[in-house]
Amino acid sequence: MIQVGVNGYGTIGKRVADAVAAQPDMELAGVAKTRPNYEAETAVRKGYPLYAAIPDRADQFHEAGIDLTGEVEDMVMKADVVVDTTPSGIGAQNRELYEQYDTPATFQGGEDPDVADTSFVARANYDGATDEDVDYVRVVSCNTTGLSRLLAPLRESYGVEKARVTLVRRGGDPGQTSRGPINDILPDPVTVPSHHGPDVNTIFPDVDIDTLGVKVPATLMHLHSVNVTLDAEPSATDVRKLLSDESRLFLVPEEAGIDGTGKLKEFAQDTGRPRGDLWENCIWEESISTEGRDLYLFQSIHQESDVIPENIDAIRALLDRDDKQTSMATTDETLGVGLESLFHGARRRVVPREADD
Amino acid sequence: MIQVGVNGYGTIGKRVADAVAAQPDMELAGVAKTRPNYEAETAVRKGYPLYAAIPDRADQFHEAGIDLTGEVEDMVMKADVVVDTTPSGIGAQNRELYEQYDTPATFQGGEDPDVADTSFVARANYDGATDEDVDYVRVVSCNTTGLSRLLAPLRESYGVEKARVTLVRRGGDPGQTSRGPINDILPDPVTVPSHHGPDVNTIFPDVDIDTLGVKVPATLMHLHSVNVTLDAEPSATDVRKLLSDESRLFLVPEEAGIDGTGKLKEFAQDTGRPRGDLWENCIWEESISTEGRDLYLFQSIHQESDVIPENIDAIRALLDRDDKQTSMATTDETLGVGLESLFHGARRRVVPREADD
Repeated sequence: MIQVGVNGYGTIGKRVADAVAAQPDMELAGVAKTRPNYEAETAVRKGYPLYAAIPDRADQFHEAGIDLTGEVEDMVMKADVVVDTTPSGIGAQNRELYEQYDTPATFQGGEDPDVADTSFVARANYDGATDEDVDYVRVVSCNTTGLSRLLAPLRESYGVEKARVTLVRRGGDPGQTSRGPINDILPDPVTVPSHHGPDVNTIFPDVDIDTLGVKVPATLMHLHSVNVTLDAEPSATDVRKLLSDESRLFLVPEEAGIDGTGKLKEFAQDTGRPRGDLWENCIWEESISTEGRDLYLFQSIHQESDVIPENIDAIRALLDRDDKQTSMATTDETLGVGLESLFHGARRRVVPREADD
Repeated sequence: MIQVGVNGYGTIGKRVADAVAAQPDMELAGVAKTRPNYEAETAVRKGYPLYAAIPDRADQFHEAGIDLTGEVEDMVMKADVVVDTTPSGIGAQNRELYEQYDTPATFQGGEDPDVADTSFVARANYDGATDEDVDYVRVVSCNTTGLSRLLAPLRESYGVEKARVTLVRRGGDPGQTSRGPINDILPDPVTVPSHHGPDVNTIFPDVDIDTLGVKVPATLMHLHSVNVTLDAEPSATDVRKLLSDESRLFLVPEEAGIDGTGKLKEFAQDTGRPRGDLWENCIWEESISTEGRDLYLFQSIHQESDVIPENIDAIRALLDRDDKQTSMATTDETLGVGLESLFHGARRRVVPREADD
């Protein structure tokens, strides 16, 4: 069993911990947290060994009546691998600690690419992390993950001449109460390209991609307006077929009556998904259109959860325990990734029908 | 003096009425309104002759203590031209009335193109409306106006191979209290292309343009994420220079500290613009970028007001009173179009500086 430590128990960390606990080949060595808030309480309730991420603050946990198993250093020592889910920039500071104990680690997309030996999206470049020299892997951001998953099959089947994407980004997560905007539409960044295009190049160095970022008053998911000029000229039906074969791409069927990110999340909750998570790119099937070699589509990305399966696969790749297909299949099966098959199989039951309200 | 009747006194109609009243060569024959609401009160206060748009409802105005000059038919008879600013679809129904009195008319972009003899954006195709056979003109929608104004100089100077635009649209106007979405990002329409591309082709039939529509919880302005593949390969500086020479394109300078539609509107209000209107396309100067022959930029469009100057010019074109340059210059001068020069001239005074708060 792979002993996995999770450093940081916030939006991503708590989800990674649950996912690790669900794997047949992994055991959760523990989670490290900075503050004894409601998330710390949850970790304890779930029976996760809890470590103080900042040793000086151990007292705060004691005062809050929360028992600690130790300090983060103990967890790093004990773990075979650490998933670092601390806030952007902190991961880079933590690397020294991981090196000290020869503990390999995965970092998140908020870190600079040079925090790790390679950037990672399972579908796109799993094998790049299995190399013996690779001890640190950076799982790219939610948006870059979503773009890479989409580009991978398009590249393989048709070739990509150029991709142009406008990312209409949620202003903040539901819990980020200090974020904005309210009633505004911001070019963000106002300069072109946004960082997303160059970040995709950490996964596919040779893809020509320009990205533009916009920020809007919504918290549920991002929406990508995607144009890809392909080398070939497939029909929209061809592309729909190609994408529907991908386990981490969910083609939202027209009959679902899902018109936006609100209903997507509602649907995920109705299916019993933990926290209403959507690990898959949600691609509106109707939107998939071709105009000559130009492909267009809309996809929504759940910023809180689409990188979770990638973190799990990154652990196996890093320790070279499984090949890409085996790891992805195990991750998908244990988590329940693959909303499309679930959806189609149970369509009559799960699709809210307005007439029945 | 051209006698102008305005049929419909809502968001667009009230602005057109004010703009007509400001023209040296026009006189407001009157405005027609369906209901005696706060807007009707304002019309009376301004001394605009008020007509009942629906004869049966004249009593409602009397009960509300609002004096009517007559019924809409009287206004149509009296006017040399009618600007129809009734809700989408009603304009088409009204055409019969205008034909009955041989009164030429301009319609709005919510109508189907075949409501009129030609569609109209002053900068793009003014002369198409001056023809003797043209009695009815359709001023295209705010978004199509914004796109056409931008494409006109690009076509002339560089040639346009293909345009791809994602329109991040406000959910409703500030006064449209029943509109949504709340906290959502909707592909709208979910199919590609949205109607905007084909609508641009009513102005530029030969332009290859694909558009995607998104709807978000904001009310102030639309935001366009624009890509134009040009025939030539100008520098970003070239394009900035080209666009800054256009009176109805406002290049938002970096030093302004304007990061979104909220500050744009605030700035417009600070300058004393009526209703905080922004008649110009607001193009973020920093966003204007080139990558080979690919041009990218963000522009915001004020849905309530950018078509106002176009309606004024359409009147002159329809009656063949002035040539394009003369009409546009008169309209711009009387309204005060040309925010860029105003801005640069008074930059220190008008730019809100956070440090001073």
